[in-house]
Amino acid sequence: MPRVTVTRRLRFNAAHRVFNPSFSDAENEATFGKCNNPNWHGHNYTLDVSVDGPVDESTGYVIDLGALNEIVEREVVDIVDHRNLNIDVAFMHGSIPTAENMVVAFWKILKPAVAPAHLLRLVLWETENNYVEYTGG
Amino acid sequence: MPRVTVTRRLRFNAAHRVFNPSFSDAENEATFGKCNNPNWHGHNYTLDVSVDGPVDESTGYVIDLGALNEIVEREVVDIVDHRNLNIDVAFMHGSIPTAENMVVAFWKILKPAVAPAHLLRLVLWETENNYVEYTGG
Amino acid sequence: MPRVTVTRRLRFNAAHRVFNPSFSDAENEATFGKCNNPNWHGHNYTLDVSVDGPVDESTGYVIDLGALNEIVEREVVDIVDHRNLNIDVAFMHGSIPTAENMVVAFWKILKPAVAPAHLLRLVLWETENNYVEYTGG
Amino acid sequence: MPRVTVTRRLRFNAAHRVFNPSFSDAENEATFGKCNNPNWHGHNYTLDVSVDGPVDESTGYVIDLGALNEIVEREVVDIVDHRNLNIDVAFMHGSIPTAENMVVAFWKILKPAVAPAHLLRLVLWETENNYVEYTGG
Amino acid sequence: MPRVTVTRRLRFNAAHRVFNPSFSDAENEATFGKCNNPNWHGHNYTLDVSVDGPVDESTGYVIDLGALNEIVEREVVDIVDHRNLNIDVAFMHGSIPTAENMVVAFWKILKPAVAPAHLLRLVLWETENNYVEYTGG
Amino acid sequence: MPRVTVTRRLRFNAAHRVFNPSFSDAENEATFGKCNNPNWHGHNYTLDVSVDGPVDESTGYVIDLGALNEIVEREVVDIVDHRNLNIDVAFMHGSIPTAENMVVAFWKILKPAVAPAHLLRLVLWETENNYVEYTGG
Repeated sequence: MPRVTVTRRLRFNAAHRVFNPSFSDAENEATFGKCNNPNWHGHNYTLDVSVDGPVDESTGYVIDLGALNEIVEREVVDIVDHRNLNIDVAFMHGSIPTAENMVVAFWKILKPAVAPAHLLRLVLWETENNYVEYTGG
Repeated sequence: MPRVTVTRRLRFNAAHRVFNPSFSDAENEATFGKCNNPNWHGHNYTLDVSVDGPVDESTGYVIDLGALNEIVEREVVDIVDHRNLNIDVAFMHGSIPTAENMVVAFWKILKPAVAPAHLLRLVLWETENNYVEYTGG
Repeated sequence: MPRVTVTRRLRFNAAHRVFNPSFSDAENEATFGKCNNPNWHGHNYTLDVSVDGPVDESTGYVIDLGALNEIVEREVVDIVDHRNLNIDVAFMHGSIPTAENMVVAFWKILKPAVAPAHLLRLVLWETENNYVEYTGG
Repeated sequence: MPRVTVTRRLRFNAAHRVFNPSFSDAENEATFGKCNNPNWHGHNYTLDVSVDGPVDESTGYVIDLGALNEIVEREVVDIVDHRNLNIDVAFMHGSIPTAENMVVAFWKILKPAVAPAHLLRLVLWETENNYVEYTGG
Repeated sequence: MPRVTVTRRLRFNAAHRVFNPSFSDAENEATFGKCNNPNWHGHNYTLDVSVDGPVDESTGYVIDLGALNEIVEREVVDIVDHRNLNIDVAFMHGSIPTAENMVVAFWKILKPAVAPAHLLRLVLWETENNYVEYTGG
Repeated sequence: MPRVTVTRRLRFNAAHRVFNPSFSDAENEATFGKCNNPNWHGHNYTLDVSVDGPVDESTGYVIDLGALNEIVEREVVDIVDHRNLNIDVAFMHGSIPTAENMVVAFWKILKPAVAPAHLLRLVLWETENNYVEYTGG
């Protein structure tokens, strides 16, 4: 039975400040530069959620993309969209909201949420020139 | 000798209806929703064909992309472009024309067609938010 | 009071056949080529709806984009999305479903539907290489 | 002497809150919805700056794009990039930071800044589905 | 009879050097910077050709896009594609191959070539951040 | 400690001629077609540089993207941008400047240059329809 990877792309807009509260102002400035702006900045994020598995013979689907979309919207997108990643998002508390930490946090939520489907990969674009990928390793 | 992956992107436009003829109307509606429209709908598809191999020292190529393009056009694109995937495409008969089934069917055709080059991966975009990948497994 | 143009982009997927039922088969073939496939083909369409007007001082908006989006979805997108433009769409009956005729038909619907806002321009992309514009003239 | 329009695209990332401080909370919620989040959200903005004029025979240019780029970066992009549009940007104070108000404010700054070149049009994308245009009228 | 604008996008790749042979080396360096590299550089160009006119009732077309495409390929794209704009392209001789001069030269060729159709506008992208427009004025 | 892949996208414009100097003119023409134009042609290239590693707890970064960007600009982009890949770029001498050979040459430079960070993958787009990937194998 062929095993295919299926990807759904979703989008959200959020504000954040990239800084370490245990650093001095000078350290934060040196480490994070303009991303450390105390009054925040923001991005249009793009999230690609990839699930792989055998193709179901009766539907031709690996997974119902509508159902996958609903899970990702409910568990991740509705919580981060039009929000402040440092303040408004409980699952990011205690974590610097870099794209790296975001994609790992999304994985921890989505891995069980999409089960029994198999989450294979997340890709998160922060700008048109920067993106991160995580496969759970 | 370095081994590089080379990808050629092609495009086609096609109509389809996603449904299982052995399902009742209610089952098809419940399973496939608006994709089950009896009068068809359609998409602009994008297909990325990836071949990998050593770089030929006398040409600097893994494969002549013009030749690869010609194979994919003749074997796949010319057969599905401006066609109805359920009715017009012999190699999809008996198969629900989801992106998953399409990419597997394309693989079965292209794997031998590009030999002795080594087909590594196919990616098929159905909309700007959905795509599938297949590597033959 | 500054006058700004605001655009909302929407998307839909549809099937169509481009042919003139009063033509002979040979004429249709000669005129419309592969777009005349009797079993249909389809596209991912992109529609840009532009409204212009003064910027409201109390909101900073020319128009509430959410409200504009809802009008365009209800009046156009929900009627053509995942549909056959020749068969399923009443407002296209008697008209060849080219991008030109579609954009003019959309204009006739949207012009009064967005009032009192002022519809300035519609742009309809059929493929990544072809698009049409209409400004009501 | 032919008159050509030349456009330079620039990008910036910023946070904002879309609300009217003279509105009640309920009014802000009803009018601006999720864009009214008190803890901000943000976007990757894209700005197209268009200048038109005769083509200089000795250079083949309407304007030196490097010089145009430097003006727009200094006067606009460096001031809004990685900033909070409500708090950090003096020229937006007293104005709701919608795309409409932003593009008009940018115009007031850039019109004299690019002189004697002739600013023809500004286009500001806030998301991949929303953009505004202003031509000074 | 409604008047619609129809656009066809084409692409080509070319090399050029932007310099004025009557300038000194120092003047060319100061004016054109890295675009003055004596050994050339190059671009992937994108050309949007827009024709407007009434919609033909028997075809639903303003113009047969296949025919328009063939004209633009024969008259412009086949002559500049995979060429050196300074050396290989007769219609650019004596002209600095900036995007501005290119778009005006394309206009002079395409205006009569598409007649009796009405050429409305040409847009030429040189990079993803720079484009020029010409409407014949 | 989660291991994330981080990618930075950079761009450059260059001229090249794809030919083998030890081939006859007829062989070069037969093998490389229009890419063999003796007066060069060119492209807008896009380069994706991917580094993977553990996420640093004190910064939330796998690598400082600003530092990665600086390395890639200094070691690769500044050397090839607005240059002739056959003539101007010392590290391509003796090599046919295909995308395959370019990406391998970039790898040899960047692998040590980004250390101790771990270079995982390079992707090089030559046109919007062709790209190559290399992972060092």
